[in-house]
Amino acid sequence: MAHIEKKLEELGLVLPEPAKMPPDVRLPFAIVNIRDRRVFVSGHGPQNPDGSFSGPFGQLGRDVTVEEGYELARKTALSMLASLKRELLDLDRIHGWCRVFGMVNSAPDFTQQPAVINGFSDLIYELFGPEVGRHARSAVGMAALPFGAGIAVEIEAEVLID
Amino acid sequence: MAHIEKKLEELGLVLPEPAKMPPDVRLPFAIVNIRDRRVFVSGHGPQNPDGSFSGPFGQLGRDVTVEEGYELARKTALSMLASLKRELLDLDRIHGWCRVFGMVNSAPDFTQQPAVINGFSDLIYELFGPEVGRHARSAVGMAALPFGAGIAVEIEAEVLID
Amino acid sequence: MAHIEKKLEELGLVLPEPAKMPPDVRLPFAIVNIRDRRVFVSGHGPQNPDGSFSGPFGQLGRDVTVEEGYELARKTALSMLASLKRELLDLDRIHGWCRVFGMVNSAPDFTQQPAVINGFSDLIYELFGPEVGRHARSAVGMAALPFGAGIAVEIEAEVLID
Repeated sequence: MAHIEKKLEELGLVLPEPAKMPPDVRLPFAIVNIRDRRVFVSGHGPQNPDGSFSGPFGQLGRDVTVEEGYELARKTALSMLASLKRELLDLDRIHGWCRVFGMVNSAPDFTQQPAVINGFSDLIYELFGPEVGRHARSAVGMAALPFGAGIAVEIEAEVLID
Repeated sequence: MAHIEKKLEELGLVLPEPAKMPPDVRLPFAIVNIRDRRVFVSGHGPQNPDGSFSGPFGQLGRDVTVEEGYELARKTALSMLASLKRELLDLDRIHGWCRVFGMVNSAPDFTQQPAVINGFSDLIYELFGPEVGRHARSAVGMAALPFGAGIAVEIEAEVLID
Repeated sequence: MAHIEKKLEELGLVLPEPAKMPPDVRLPFAIVNIRDRRVFVSGHGPQNPDGSFSGPFGQLGRDVTVEEGYELARKTALSMLASLKRELLDLDRIHGWCRVFGMVNSAPDFTQQPAVINGFSDLIYELFGPEVGRHARSAVGMAALPFGAGIAVEIEAEVLID
C-alpha cells in the first residue's frame, strides 16, 4: 500500500466521498487541475465521509469555536487529499506542497485564523513530513463562504508532482 | 482571424477598452505580468465597453442579485481577456488556464458565490474548450472591494503560454 | 554590499527581526517556501524593527486611515524582505516578482484598498526596478485578519530566484 495511505489508515482517517452538492449548485471547473508538474487545487471545505459538507456552519467568532474550526480545517485536508487521490490515483506522487491559502469565515473581530488553519497544516506535516509537506500559508478572515449556511473553512492549494 | 477572437465575434462579445480609473487612483503594478511561460493576471473587475467599471456596485446579498452577479463575472472575463490581448497580442497564445480566484463582494450571510463566479467560468470554457479552458477555482466572499461604491466581483488568475 | 541592501541602507530602511508571536500562537508552516526556482512567501504583516506587529490595528474605514494603511503596507514589504533575506541570504538572488496578493482589513464600505497596498508596491518597484520588481496584484477587503486586535494589512507573494 502506498506510503501516505498507510499513514492515513494508521491514524484511523478516512478520505470522504466526492463532495455532494445541493441540486442547484453547478461547479463548471476542475476540482484538481494538473498543468505539467503543477497541481492546482480548487477551494475545498470540510466534508463528512459521505461527501456532504460538514458543520458547524457559519462564522468563527459567532457560530463556531476555535476548537471546532481546527477540526473543520483537518477535515478540509482530508477532502483535499480525497480529491487529489481521485485525480493522481496515488498520493505518493505528491513531491512537494507549495502554497496553502486558508480562508476562515470570520465575524469582524475574530483574529485566531492561524489557530483554525493549523488543523490543516498539522495533518499535512504529519502525513508528508517536513520536506514534502512544507508549505507557505496565509490564514485570513472572509466575509462569507458558500454552501449551506456557509462552510466555516475553505482552503485552496498548489502542490507539485514528479 | 485568431480562433478565440473569432469565437468572441460569433458570440457578439466585445472586449472593453483599458480600465478607466478615477483620477485619484494610481496602480503601480503590472495588470498582466509574464514570467517565462507563466502569466499572472491582476485582479480584474467588470467593465463597460468604454473601460469604465460596470455596476451594479456593492454587495451580493444586499445590493446586487445573483443574476446580476453572474453577468458581472462574465464581464470580468471580458475585461481579463482584453488585458491579456493587449499584452499577448494574440489570445490563441494561451495554452492553459491554471487557477482562477473569484472574489465576490458579499453581505455576511450570502452563500451563492459559486453561482456568481460561474459567469466567468462558463465563458472561459465556452471560448477555450475543456482542455485549454480547464481551471481550478475558489469562489469566496470578500468584506469589500475597490472602485466606485465597490465593484461586486473581482477575479485574479494565472494562465500559461507556449 | 549587495545591491538591494545598499538601496535599503540609502533609504534609511531597516529590516525587522523575525516576527514575535504571542505565546499562544503556533505557526506550523514555512514563512518562505522554496520549490525549485519558485519562492512562495506566506502572508506577512507590518512589523516594528524588534519583530512585534505594528499598529494601528483593526479595520481601514473604521480604525485606520488610508495614510496609516499605506505606511503599514510599506512596513509589510520590509517584513517580507526580512524573511526573504533570512531564507535566501542575499536579496539580489530575487530574479523577478510574480504575484502580490494584498489583503486589507476592511470595514464593509471601505473601497481604497489599492491606495493602501501601493505602500507595498511602491517600495518593491523603488528597490527592484521595473523589470525585476514588476508584479501582478490584487488589493481586496478582508473581513478580519489575525494578531493582536487584527493587523490592518496582510500580503502574500510569489517571487522567482535564479
